[in-house]
Amino acid sequence: MRISVDRLRDVSRQGLIAAGLPARHAGIAAEALVTTDTWGILTHGTKNLPGYIRRIRAGGIRARAHPKIIRQGPAWAIIDGDSALGMVASVFAMKTAISRARRAGIGYVGVRNSCHFGAAGYYASLALKSGMMGMAMCNDTPTVAIPGSARAVLGSNPLAVAVPAGKEHPILLDIATSTVAGGKVFAAAAQGKKIPRGWLVDRRGLPTQNPALFPDRASLTSMAGHKGYGIALVIEILSAVLTGAAIGQHVLSWSFDNPTLPTGHGAAFIAVDISRIASRGVFQKRMDQTIREIRAAPKARSRNQVYLPGEMEWEKRKRALREGVEISRELWSKLRELAGSPEGR
Amino acid sequence: MRISVDRLRDVSRQGLIAAGLPARHAGIAAEALVTTDTWGILTHGTKNLPGYIRRIRAGGIRARAHPKIIRQGPAWAIIDGDSALGMVASVFAMKTAISRARRAGIGYVGVRNSCHFGAAGYYASLALKSGMMGMAMCNDTPTVAIPGSARAVLGSNPLAVAVPAGKEHPILLDIATSTVAGGKVFAAAAQGKKIPRGWLVDRRGLPTQNPALFPDRASLTSMAGHKGYGIALVIEILSAVLTGAAIGQHVLSWSFDNPTLPTGHGAAFIAVDISRIASRGVFQKRMDQTIREIRAAPKARSRNQVYLPGEMEWEKRKRALREGVEISRELWSKLRELAGSPEGR
Repeated sequence: MRISVDRLRDVSRQGLIAAGLPARHAGIAAEALVTTDTWGILTHGTKNLPGYIRRIRAGGIRARAHPKIIRQGPAWAIIDGDSALGMVASVFAMKTAISRARRAGIGYVGVRNSCHFGAAGYYASLALKSGMMGMAMCNDTPTVAIPGSARAVLGSNPLAVAVPAGKEHPILLDIATSTVAGGKVFAAAAQGKKIPRGWLVDRRGLPTQNPALFPDRASLTSMAGHKGYGIALVIEILSAVLTGAAIGQHVLSWSFDNPTLPTGHGAAFIAVDISRIASRGVFQKRMDQTIREIRAAPKARSRNQVYLPGEMEWEKRKRALREGVEISRELWSKLRELAGSPEGR
Repeated sequence: MRISVDRLRDVSRQGLIAAGLPARHAGIAAEALVTTDTWGILTHGTKNLPGYIRRIRAGGIRARAHPKIIRQGPAWAIIDGDSALGMVASVFAMKTAISRARRAGIGYVGVRNSCHFGAAGYYASLALKSGMMGMAMCNDTPTVAIPGSARAVLGSNPLAVAVPAGKEHPILLDIATSTVAGGKVFAAAAQGKKIPRGWLVDRRGLPTQNPALFPDRASLTSMAGHKGYGIALVIEILSAVLTGAAIGQHVLSWSFDNPTLPTGHGAAFIAVDISRIASRGVFQKRMDQTIREIRAAPKARSRNQVYLPGEMEWEKRKRALREGVEISRELWSKLRELAGSPEGR
């Protein structure tokens, strides 16, 4: 069923308030989750709200957390997330990165004691409103094997980058550093389907096409082998080694591990203030020209279009703002129940 | 044959001096190329020196260039490379990024009017001497198709990251954002071998296993499809759109295009001063622990080791410093000829 963005945001916010979050934090998190839904990234939006609320109620995520800057300099800061909901710590961190970039041209903010933050792209996109380029990344509990390993070593450590353009849509890249996201494997398992060779390795480190083995008896593979592994490790360093967050196997799963414990996630956010470094108008023209030249590339046989990163998401968002977000009846019912208004507000 | 690192560096330097470079610039470039050779990245080291010198003599690379900062702020700078040899402009830029990071915690430096800079990893590694994390990336003349295109749209835009550890080797990641580097395709063509499906697409955008079609009648594919394409585009933006360098199809090939013309390459360099953001000792311990935990991962069947990014390169360098660099007799003869000392200095 299609639910209007305003209604979905309001019900999500009410659910978080009912779980004990201050209204301001509930609003911040609801906005993050619903925006993610509007892009069609339904695996990382309101679908996860019941799980987050379960963890808030159990105490592993602190309802009344106060994320704060614990070290800082002209172009950087380290934030202790105080085991807040990931969206709450991460929006604070990205806003801090933006304010550092405004002063210094570029700003790096690392976060410790956070939790699963949903879609990295949401935080990167916050920079767009200030005309800035934004980047976001995080670590996670290991689900990804590296070349030569028979067990998961790193999380699917995502990387997102948002870049404003002029008349064209902003670039919005949001990728996991595993070959595919775990959600695709779960979906195949739920449908009883085989998965393509190359997505998973079993406990001997050999390829398997059985999605039901994941995550206990199989691991995701690294995107492009050693290349994705290397990028995931760099993300781990910027998000966790440098910030004081839990590293690798020391990060708990937000959905599977004991919900009374903090997960220890780390994350990193970078903003680049384009108008400090270049003329904003010139940059916008150069972005538009680059986008148009890419779009004009000769097409492969039976293809009539190439896409820019984020192009499909912006189109989906336009439709969602007009027609609402498509979510399941079960989820909508659950969200209303959590909001304490089962009669359908 | 094996040539000692000192001898190879000296002969390379002399060749560049003979081509008109000031001694200081010749020394900087020779050090970059020979260090690259010691890592075993022979495709990006002294092998390219004859080509660079050809372009210097033709005027497309300026022998007496003066790369300079044209805009700057607390944590960033934009450098005009003045069509210098790529190594000369890039070492200046990375050193500028390091000095910005020392002041602000992080430093971004973009470069326009540069040329092919060789191995990105060399510049990233310069940060290690200051105990910093370094990143380097650049654009290049298009050789890589994107998903859905039948022509090359972006260069193989490499990304390199170097991170100091404590007792362990530093992390040194250096990857092209194409599925494989063009050099591997040229090597297969030279040996008359078929290449694996997935490396190249032909002019219809369909997979081909014939390496001889590259680069005129086939393009490399993006690493991991839309993911590598997205990362390559972000590199293009940081290296060229933001810096004022030539973008995409407007970048000339340093080896194939008219050598009297500047190529217009762009590049970007980032340094992060770890000791400003964290305690250096704590960071080193956390890096060592992370590296050791990765190394201790259960191994896949028939594998007895997993590698950290750069581990093989540091081992190769150790051997090269002891036993010299393995280069072909033809290249050694050519380098001596360019140095003006054919009798074998």
